[in-house]
Amino acid sequence: MADPSSCEEAAVAERGLSARGARIAGRGQGLLDEGFALYVGDPFDGDRNPQGILNFGTSENKLCFDLIQERLTKPDMYYLEPHLLQYSDTQGVKSFREEIARFLTEYANAPTALDPENVIVMNGCCAVFATLSAVLCDPGDGYLIPTPYYGGINSKTWLYGEMQPVHVPLFSEVSNEGSRPFQLTIEKLETALHRAQEQDIRVRALILINPHNPLGDIYPAQLLKECLEFAHRYKLHVIMDEIYMLSVYDDTTFTSILSFDSLPDPNRTHFMWGFSKDFGMCGIRVGVLYTRNHEIRKAVNQLAMFHGCPGPVQHVLSQFLSDREWLNNVFFPTNKRRLKEAQNTLVDGLAELGIPVLKSSGGLYVWADFRKFLKSQTFEAEIDLWWKLLDEKLLISPGKAFCCYEPGWFRLVFSDSIDKICLCIKRLQQMLHNKMDNSIPDCSSPTEFEVAETVDEPSANYVNTAVDEVSEGYSNLKKIAVF
Amino acid sequence: MADPSSCEEAAVAERGLSARGARIAGRGQGLLDEGFALYVGDPFDGDRNPQGILNFGTSENKLCFDLIQERLTKPDMYYLEPHLLQYSDTQGVKSFREEIARFLTEYANAPTALDPENVIVMNGCCAVFATLSAVLCDPGDGYLIPTPYYGGINSKTWLYGEMQPVHVPLFSEVSNEGSRPFQLTIEKLETALHRAQEQDIRVRALILINPHNPLGDIYPAQLLKECLEFAHRYKLHVIMDEIYMLSVYDDTTFTSILSFDSLPDPNRTHFMWGFSKDFGMCGIRVGVLYTRNHEIRKAVNQLAMFHGCPGPVQHVLSQFLSDREWLNNVFFPTNKRRLKEAQNTLVDGLAELGIPVLKSSGGLYVWADFRKFLKSQTFEAEIDLWWKLLDEKLLISPGKAFCCYEPGWFRLVFSDSIDKICLCIKRLQQMLHNKMDNSIPDCSSPTEFEVAETVDEPSANYVNTAVDEVSEGYSNLKKIAVF
Repeated sequence: MADPSSCEEAAVAERGLSARGARIAGRGQGLLDEGFALYVGDPFDGDRNPQGILNFGTSENKLCFDLIQERLTKPDMYYLEPHLLQYSDTQGVKSFREEIARFLTEYANAPTALDPENVIVMNGCCAVFATLSAVLCDPGDGYLIPTPYYGGINSKTWLYGEMQPVHVPLFSEVSNEGSRPFQLTIEKLETALHRAQEQDIRVRALILINPHNPLGDIYPAQLLKECLEFAHRYKLHVIMDEIYMLSVYDDTTFTSILSFDSLPDPNRTHFMWGFSKDFGMCGIRVGVLYTRNHEIRKAVNQLAMFHGCPGPVQHVLSQFLSDREWLNNVFFPTNKRRLKEAQNTLVDGLAELGIPVLKSSGGLYVWADFRKFLKSQTFEAEIDLWWKLLDEKLLISPGKAFCCYEPGWFRLVFSDSIDKICLCIKRLQQMLHNKMDNSIPDCSSPTEFEVAETVDEPSANYVNTAVDEVSEGYSNLKKIAVF
Repeated sequence: MADPSSCEEAAVAERGLSARGARIAGRGQGLLDEGFALYVGDPFDGDRNPQGILNFGTSENKLCFDLIQERLTKPDMYYLEPHLLQYSDTQGVKSFREEIARFLTEYANAPTALDPENVIVMNGCCAVFATLSAVLCDPGDGYLIPTPYYGGINSKTWLYGEMQPVHVPLFSEVSNEGSRPFQLTIEKLETALHRAQEQDIRVRALILINPHNPLGDIYPAQLLKECLEFAHRYKLHVIMDEIYMLSVYDDTTFTSILSFDSLPDPNRTHFMWGFSKDFGMCGIRVGVLYTRNHEIRKAVNQLAMFHGCPGPVQHVLSQFLSDREWLNNVFFPTNKRRLKEAQNTLVDGLAELGIPVLKSSGGLYVWADFRKFLKSQTFEAEIDLWWKLLDEKLLISPGKAFCCYEPGWFRLVFSDSIDKICLCIKRLQQMLHNKMDNSIPDCSSPTEFEVAETVDEPSANYVNTAVDEVSEGYSNLKKIAVF
């Protein structure tokens, strides 16, 4: 029998990569990255490339650049002292960590002041995932994660950490009153954990995203507590990704893990947040890990040298966070209003096309049900629809990119200008209603929404078809002013 | 027999770390990091902490902050467009990569224009080492590296990459005419490689630092070519660390690997450079990998998401590199003059104390021979001397931190103000001449320098006792104006 490892090595040696390097190079792009790469090759621009790809797939908040620009160009930002250009604490500049601790204490509603010594600053939450994977797990170890979930976590935990996801599949069907579509329960966590154990996968962690990506909903405090207790029972670490913590745009109460008076297992509970989403600064590359576990901080700090942030950027963001008056009176209220208006516009437009969405409260996207537009209820049909939309120069994100177990769901980002949202709806309309073949049922009537029909209490449910809110058709959407 | 792995795992589980995490956390700090941590706890400040630790151990260029500050605060730097705050190419912003390619083509004297597609931008050269380690090697693989060498490479290649160094020991003794102290030869590389092979270590790469750290000398073009041919014979990758490429302060010709018309194995030859040393911006965290190997770029680019640089920083540094008039007429000439003056001042001061140094041409430090001050010719005595100097509030770097095989050598950074250099000499003098016990020979006479005596041709040798250049004593050093 041929030795596969030596065959692999021979092929790899030719290219100069190690076996590990070949695995890294050979790992296919996720669908989110693939979509983004297509967009980058032909980006929409109202003036220069109006036929280019509209990007409603990448989760960026483009609604508040005017505010951010105004604040980042104030005189207090123009400060350059030698220490900012020299080596500094790899954990993060102390004054910046202090500012972050104060900020999170206030905005995450912590019962007592957070300790700056528990804060580690890194160049983005990708780096937080990479370092935690390396120090919490050994290669091949697994982490529980409810599906659908932001698919980028797969590569962020695998590339350096070689961890594998253990899915906790959730479905849209609502089985009993008080339940929601894609409802997480402790029973489902238990089932997934035991299945993994049967497969000899050592599960080391539970990853939760709150506000959820891609669902856009928020974990109730009680469920969070139960999840923490479940993790404690099995000595699992909990990695709590709250990157959208301050992008809650309705009146739902958001509960941060940092707000609990006590945690079942504080040494295994780790929080992450960053500037990318809540401040619309994906390009600034700053993420934060908060953990009380001294040993884990020590290990992560060894790796932090690979994930450092520029001194001047740490200074600028310290100033930024410290301006509470501006944050409280200008930025957050305006951002919330704009998010809500943009979300309404997209949801209304989708409703006009017969596309229901899950009721959402936080994040920058909605989770939309395109099942009736699939030729068959398969992922092949989902990806086929995705490509057809790309042909129409519209990028949205298929459920497969989120490891969803139910084909036909798509994530659409709404945090962009009204003009672009309208064009998104127009392109969707063209593709779905003008170009789809006759096998697709007529979907002009909102009463046909499958998900809406399965929900018992429309006023409290998590599926919002927005039908009753649609007072104007798509042709009038452009008149809605967001800002 | 007890199973050590299960014992380890039990201990580890208690702390919540994986076995890998425990190895990472348990890895001791290198001596350079240890020294820096001591300094950070009690840093010298002329006004606020004049009895604090003087840092001549950390390789930073503190001579040009005035120039850098002036340039970085010009109006062209104050530009903030949405794309700089959004996701961009993880390989680096295209316009920045183009600027880097133009810059390196010119300053590394490349025969044809470098290709921006071969440039990968990362947050510092630590990240370049981490990613190359991960994609060129498998855990346990080795890399050849002549000793002494910058010891930080050990952790940068081990923490994620799990590579191990295979030393090529070099010594100060000069065996024949035309040879230099710490001379690298191909024979020594061959010997080290074969020894590693006998130990079943799979050697995958050769790492060279040019200008050398800590020796401060420069590889002659012919030796470089021979090293590349050696590596090609054994299918080794060559990682060429040229981080001090533009910090050459005498008339020695520096040959960058990028300047060769052809390379024996271009697909296994990788170049790195960054802004930390040549522009005195360690805190800006920007490093560059240049490699023509498409497969390796593909693999490194997968990891580059963990090592991204902020968009605004990439913009600022693009502007910075593009200002050739300022670089050529202001920055580089001034920086070179200041480096040379500071180096002279330190070398003269050391000569006054009877401390010879290796003749150096590039980098920010000298390699100084403290052997006659050791109680015994052992590393214990070297570290003992290091601690005694720290008691005197002076941080320099012992040879052990560079894996030197000969005890008694120290690296002293000179790229600091004349005042501080004078204080460094003063503290050295106090410790070596006033406090050392009588077992140390009298070293007031420069004629006793051992290394100087072993060299045949003083005019061409690589050991510069600087004795003949010393026209003024230490007491006059403060009068020398650097800028």
